[in-house]
Amino acid sequence: MFQTSAKTFSVSAATASAYRRVFLVGLRRYCKKTSTKLRVSEALSGAQLGADVKGWVRSVRPQKNNIFLHVNDGSSLQSLQIVADAKLNDPLLTFGSAVEVTGILKKSPHQKQPVELEAEQIRVVGECNPVNFPFKIKKRHSLEYIRQLPHLRCRTNAFSSLLRIRSEATAAIHSYFKNNGFVQIHTPIITSNDCEGAGELFQVEPSGPATVDDKNFFSVPAFLTVSGQLHLEVMSGAFSRVYTFGPTFRAENSQSRRHLAEFFMVEAEISFTESLEDLTKVIEDVFRSATERVLARCAEDVDLFHRHVTPGHRVSPEGRSISYTEAIDILHRSSEKFTFPTDAAAVDLLVPGVGELCGGSLREERLNLLMDRLKRVGLEDTYNWYLDLRRFGSVPHGGFGLGFERYLQCVLGVDNIKDVIPFPRFSHSCLL
Amino acid sequence: MFQTSAKTFSVSAATASAYRRVFLVGLRRYCKKTSTKLRVSEALSGAQLGADVKGWVRSVRPQKNNIFLHVNDGSSLQSLQIVADAKLNDPLLTFGSAVEVTGILKKSPHQKQPVELEAEQIRVVGECNPVNFPFKIKKRHSLEYIRQLPHLRCRTNAFSSLLRIRSEATAAIHSYFKNNGFVQIHTPIITSNDCEGAGELFQVEPSGPATVDDKNFFSVPAFLTVSGQLHLEVMSGAFSRVYTFGPTFRAENSQSRRHLAEFFMVEAEISFTESLEDLTKVIEDVFRSATERVLARCAEDVDLFHRHVTPGHRVSPEGRSISYTEAIDILHRSSEKFTFPTDAAAVDLLVPGVGELCGGSLREERLNLLMDRLKRVGLEDTYNWYLDLRRFGSVPHGGFGLGFERYLQCVLGVDNIKDVIPFPRFSHSCLL
Repeated sequence: MFQTSAKTFSVSAATASAYRRVFLVGLRRYCKKTSTKLRVSEALSGAQLGADVKGWVRSVRPQKNNIFLHVNDGSSLQSLQIVADAKLNDPLLTFGSAVEVTGILKKSPHQKQPVELEAEQIRVVGECNPVNFPFKIKKRHSLEYIRQLPHLRCRTNAFSSLLRIRSEATAAIHSYFKNNGFVQIHTPIITSNDCEGAGELFQVEPSGPATVDDKNFFSVPAFLTVSGQLHLEVMSGAFSRVYTFGPTFRAENSQSRRHLAEFFMVEAEISFTESLEDLTKVIEDVFRSATERVLARCAEDVDLFHRHVTPGHRVSPEGRSISYTEAIDILHRSSEKFTFPTDAAAVDLLVPGVGELCGGSLREERLNLLMDRLKRVGLEDTYNWYLDLRRFGSVPHGGFGLGFERYLQCVLGVDNIKDVIPFPRFSHSCLL
Repeated sequence: MFQTSAKTFSVSAATASAYRRVFLVGLRRYCKKTSTKLRVSEALSGAQLGADVKGWVRSVRPQKNNIFLHVNDGSSLQSLQIVADAKLNDPLLTFGSAVEVTGILKKSPHQKQPVELEAEQIRVVGECNPVNFPFKIKKRHSLEYIRQLPHLRCRTNAFSSLLRIRSEATAAIHSYFKNNGFVQIHTPIITSNDCEGAGELFQVEPSGPATVDDKNFFSVPAFLTVSGQLHLEVMSGAFSRVYTFGPTFRAENSQSRRHLAEFFMVEAEISFTESLEDLTKVIEDVFRSATERVLARCAEDVDLFHRHVTPGHRVSPEGRSISYTEAIDILHRSSEKFTFPTDAAAVDLLVPGVGELCGGSLREERLNLLMDRLKRVGLEDTYNWYLDLRRFGSVPHGGFGLGFERYLQCVLGVDNIKDVIPFPRFSHSCLL
């Protein structure tokens, strides 16, 4: 809706055949030539001499003969130092402004950075009035403060580090599963299942006047998923290892530091297993491999958190697995009272300060038990499809779900879950 | 809800400190030892002699002295041939049943497969009554037929191939972006934006009685996203390259072969570009690298489609980019009439039979133009945050969205979009 110029034509099925050989249509009337870009992270490697760097000004330091800038483009926490003749100074060169700098990359005489860019030309492409800009130069803003500005908080060091870490952790998790023979399944967001029998579901219907001749758009009530487990169980009838990684939802009226209405879950299901040890092994391996990779590849970003944002926090990729007996013993020795009896074919990954990071269990594969249970609660017809999974080539299987935001909290030591997701949603709040 | 045994305890914040050293709690009372598994794809490589293979029976051929089985576990299209003494036969060894086979992997005397498993023991772990099972041995069921059985269709060769291809294509797309310096952003599913100003939005509210003291759970009307573009534009103020890959939604009353209510989109946004050529290059590269990888790593699966499911279809990773002038010329030479004038800072990727696979454009970065436009439509206050993006360090940027299901249709030649997504959602249908 914001485009003053718009896409101008699309191809209907009828016209498609008319130009079967027209594969990629580029409309180039307004195209301008741009010079080759060098990203800050590439410039910092100092491999090239002539460079054209674009980014946002993180600091400005005018001196008598020279002006020093730090320019950041999100490719790394570290900014590139720009040195320019004082005559290239410009009142628009302010904290937060966007610039294009052309010059020569040189070894830096200072220890802090390997290279610096000796500017020949600096062009301010986007101004930033420092009076109105809600972040101030050299000030470390609190996570609470930047959280109020979801459209701008990526421009702080802390949150841009968080987003790089989140991206790397996501890639690491996908890599783990791919390297271990899991097939990724895009489980649906909209579902007619009520997986956990919980009341805290979001329901989905078109916003405008009814577009379908029915009470419900989907002919049945439809909800946002609370778990992809049942859909993964479907796939467990043909694949021995499947996983999903995507958003899940709870319509919980909570503004606590632990809960979101929309959060990401990693869920996996493993067929032909009757062993919790198999599940525990996968949980440990996912945690370890993701954490090792994040610590290795986002060292600077993680360090920023551990030094300045959540000082004193450390994380180790190694968990310690303890037996049922040990766990019970520790629980009994604690002074707490527990509501539920302590036996089950289940496994939990518990983290101090974060709570349950991960929960898994072996699934009930016995048709008769399931049928009796569903009959008792009057859901035999609704879940007849689920019974089919047990009627036709059923296998013992189990799986787990891992809360991705809680994982990031655990690695970074971040107290509030809203600070590890780009756009947090919770009761009374859906900004942007 | 289906578990007859359940997780039994979780850790509250208060108790967490009581056993700060309890990291991983495995409840092992019911654990059984399982032997090391060998997946069918590993067995087919013939690297091991002693093997324990688990999977589903795809064919049974009893002979006088021997019985021959094909067992598949989803790790590849190819099944493993099992040869067993006739005395190991069992009436429960039927098409679709789940089995565990122990034996010795040997070089196969037959050309069709490199190895076969000489079975010492065969155990049926999940029966499958061939009379009731909706798929029949050796019958090639149509995509239309298997689409009616969303909980079982992964058990057919065609759909399990599709799911492996979809998983590989997903990984390939993530790899492309990662290798090219894009940061992945999890753009939100629930949003208070109405990005395209379109009427076809799903609205979201809790299903049960109001849990919050307000008309809306989020205090404002909230919708399922139709595009992550605006959220990526937020990130374009700090990162020069970002992308998102996730579900998007349209409450469109359509049961056509081209539309879904829930479908996946790959969206990218590139900062500091004033050139459609930059965008076109990325679109071409995503398409080429994903397609090359899918064709290389899922050769058998793609071949199944091109031979048997969509015979005659072929795909090439190379697109052909043509200029604006060429495109207009081809359009003028066609006999079609076009409603819209043909100029814009936009690019479309068009595919015969599928239509618009991808659309991209340069975004309007001029604050005054945007402000005027928003004033005229009375949205200046609502989108003040969007104007902030242009007020503070604005940069020329552009991006595109690629429909993932349409991409799969294009690669595989699949006519109906419902056949390339695990759980299709459209008006009047939300199965499972």
